[in-house]
Amino acid sequence: MLLSEPGGIQKTQLAEKADVLLVLGGDGTILNAARLAAERSIPILGVNMGGLGFLTEVRLDNLYPSLERVFANDYALDERLMLTTHVHRHGETVARGIVLNDVVISKGTLARMIELQIAIGGQFVTNLRGDGLIIGTPTGSTAYSLSAGGPIMNPALQALILTPICPHTLTHRPLIVPGDVVIEVTLTSKDDGSMATLDGQVGVAMTQGDTAVVRASDYRTRLIRFPESHYYEVLRKKLKWGHV
Amino acid sequence: MLLSEPGGIQKTQLAEKADVLLVLGGDGTILNAARLAAERSIPILGVNMGGLGFLTEVRLDNLYPSLERVFANDYALDERLMLTTHVHRHGETVARGIVLNDVVISKGTLARMIELQIAIGGQFVTNLRGDGLIIGTPTGSTAYSLSAGGPIMNPALQALILTPICPHTLTHRPLIVPGDVVIEVTLTSKDDGSMATLDGQVGVAMTQGDTAVVRASDYRTRLIRFPESHYYEVLRKKLKWGHV
Amino acid sequence: MLLSEPGGIQKTQLAEKADVLLVLGGDGTILNAARLAAERSIPILGVNMGGLGFLTEVRLDNLYPSLERVFANDYALDERLMLTTHVHRHGETVARGIVLNDVVISKGTLARMIELQIAIGGQFVTNLRGDGLIIGTPTGSTAYSLSAGGPIMNPALQALILTPICPHTLTHRPLIVPGDVVIEVTLTSKDDGSMATLDGQVGVAMTQGDTAVVRASDYRTRLIRFPESHYYEVLRKKLKWGHV
Amino acid sequence: MLLSEPGGIQKTQLAEKADVLLVLGGDGTILNAARLAAERSIPILGVNMGGLGFLTEVRLDNLYPSLERVFANDYALDERLMLTTHVHRHGETVARGIVLNDVVISKGTLARMIELQIAIGGQFVTNLRGDGLIIGTPTGSTAYSLSAGGPIMNPALQALILTPICPHTLTHRPLIVPGDVVIEVTLTSKDDGSMATLDGQVGVAMTQGDTAVVRASDYRTRLIRFPESHYYEVLRKKLKWGHV
Repeated sequence: MLLSEPGGIQKTQLAEKADVLLVLGGDGTILNAARLAAERSIPILGVNMGGLGFLTEVRLDNLYPSLERVFANDYALDERLMLTTHVHRHGETVARGIVLNDVVISKGTLARMIELQIAIGGQFVTNLRGDGLIIGTPTGSTAYSLSAGGPIMNPALQALILTPICPHTLTHRPLIVPGDVVIEVTLTSKDDGSMATLDGQVGVAMTQGDTAVVRASDYRTRLIRFPESHYYEVLRKKLKWGHV
Repeated sequence: MLLSEPGGIQKTQLAEKADVLLVLGGDGTILNAARLAAERSIPILGVNMGGLGFLTEVRLDNLYPSLERVFANDYALDERLMLTTHVHRHGETVARGIVLNDVVISKGTLARMIELQIAIGGQFVTNLRGDGLIIGTPTGSTAYSLSAGGPIMNPALQALILTPICPHTLTHRPLIVPGDVVIEVTLTSKDDGSMATLDGQVGVAMTQGDTAVVRASDYRTRLIRFPESHYYEVLRKKLKWGHV
Repeated sequence: MLLSEPGGIQKTQLAEKADVLLVLGGDGTILNAARLAAERSIPILGVNMGGLGFLTEVRLDNLYPSLERVFANDYALDERLMLTTHVHRHGETVARGIVLNDVVISKGTLARMIELQIAIGGQFVTNLRGDGLIIGTPTGSTAYSLSAGGPIMNPALQALILTPICPHTLTHRPLIVPGDVVIEVTLTSKDDGSMATLDGQVGVAMTQGDTAVVRASDYRTRLIRFPESHYYEVLRKKLKWGHV
Repeated sequence: MLLSEPGGIQKTQLAEKADVLLVLGGDGTILNAARLAAERSIPILGVNMGGLGFLTEVRLDNLYPSLERVFANDYALDERLMLTTHVHRHGETVARGIVLNDVVISKGTLARMIELQIAIGGQFVTNLRGDGLIIGTPTGSTAYSLSAGGPIMNPALQALILTPICPHTLTHRPLIVPGDVVIEVTLTSKDDGSMATLDGQVGVAMTQGDTAVVRASDYRTRLIRFPESHYYEVLRKKLKWGHV
């Protein structure tokens, strides 16, 4: 079954039944689909409805030939690391979720700064004061993390990135860690509207003392790719490298 | 009259009557006092109650000798540029204020990005997408703007800085403009909790189409300085330059 | 007299005799012409032979109409701050020069780092270790300084910028100072091929203990501008703002 | 055999005969020892003679107890990825070397910019114009790459980083790639004193058309560690996180 829109069935049902998800939209639409598809690892074919995307693979005018190739099994699967997040409060899990790009813990609108205590693999790393922290996958490295000053990570990497947002201490820098570590981020400043935001789409309020526990998920996003597509070519075009 | 705390009189009355404001606290306390003192240009003596500050001049244990020097007129006044801001909506001014550090126009907590249309001196400059924009004075350059990637500006400069916060377009950079220009920033994305924040202390909700008009104020903050104090020495200590 | 190429007369004679310098080339060609034109403040009309430039004003295919306007005095002069540099060694001036963009003091190719002692207005600022230091004008802020992480400065500013190149101490940041200060930069590490480079075109070897003294020049570069040209429009195009 | 200084025998002989290298100095001394020790994978115990280092493990005043623990086999080995570099010219290898931190391809002192063509895994990535390119290991991420704007990489990562130095195109960013790729960097601008520098210590002249081929080495640097040493604690101290 192949559906582009939920139509008469629920989005969640869609993910239970589909063999392939055909997603028409932009990268944001794919992030949404990736969360739906995660538990059953359904392959996703992203169809670009606007400008070039990092996650969409084919242009709309190339949709039918691309589908023929999918039906003929003439494609590769590009497996992307995802993150699973649990927010703990007084020993209970108050929220959980899975993302393809990033988990962002950020200050409320009026607050000047929040303070986050960061531990990696059970070791204390630092107390970060600033606008917040992005915990991203390699896929997410070209999203919000890039705007916050982070590097580009090849999506084949089994690694996570912690990118501080407007850190008060100028020596804080994006930090790349192995993909198998557990990251714990505790809000130590008083709650002032702080949120954990999953893939820029789902928000979870955080109060003082809450801990977001983030690790690589057992699930992967599986993107349908055709051999002629090249990661560095997309990167070059999106970032306009080589133009004066 | 010299008062360190409002006590029985109102804060606003204080500013109407005082000849000198003695401010005990940190840089944040001085920002607050600077707004009160602005219209009457009352000299401010900042007394540092915690770590070294950019705006505080004397340490608490040096308070009495410093006061003696103030009474003896043995001091200089360091005049600092301030910004005046008006928020316009459908041709009306819905909020106004004056700041010593910065006016920040930023996204709501859940929003992924806002879009701001920026004009300087009546000329269109750019549409900025990102977390927001800081419009700062030279004094404010070592505050939030620095965390967002901005440069340090000597406070004697008659210039303003526009620092984008996590801009989506990677070629957006902090922009320094002459102190006599008018900056107009219009929220063109839909309102999602966007705010204009004055000196990190006063928030004004902004809705789609609102324009913040920011220019140098006619008022100045006048900080009491003693000849042995040196801007670059404070900078060096605050930023720990020269240590390995 | 109006000449586009030195031909039979010397470049230096050209500057002695010309009333207007018509410069065909890119921004680099104009930097060269600006140094020649400085002492007599000859207006320069930059004709763009390649891509859009910050300093060139007209495209080649618009040359003749533009010249007509120059002859008819239908233009404005955009005066740009220049820097004068003297390199002192054991009390003697061993080199001097004038620039429109920047003076760069940088390490030799093999050296890992140099150390520079920086003073501004006679006050010690910091010891900088790294690849070097760019001292730029507002015009130069969109040249090398921008690549090194500096901000954009509106060319009307009377201010200078000191941009560290790959500083070892991460809290070093670009620093903007008023246009009337004297900047002294002394090479304190041992000489290893260090150079002071003027506008990227003229190199002066620096040895340990040498001091480069940089200040605003009395001369200005005077660029011919037509009213329809807009600084922010050029900026927007050069930096591809507003494109996704 | 355990020797701290080459004394009567050659440095290279030392590496042929030693079971453990005891290195007294700073991180630079260890870089040098790491190249000597690489082929035989000799464990290195770094003894810190100055400030805290990323690679040194014990302070001089703790030397003898530490040695006792080494003799008693009471230590762990921290294996660090190294890079091997070959410089190709007209089909011949003109230089080769191995590094623990980084290979830097950079412009000559007078040159304004060089142009480098970068390919990763046989795919064209970009033409980079600027001061140069750093190709670093995770260990090297806290060295020159950090000064050039790169992120911090946990040394356990099997990944490489390409950090542009003062790139002309502002959208060039540090790029992290998997540890098993081959990176080819060709100097396409004319030779002007360009160099490939290995760990900041060994220089190889590069001429137009030369290609540096960089990949992970089969050898590893093996650093002796004691269980009480913590990577994030060293990071926190070196970068002064958590201090105001």
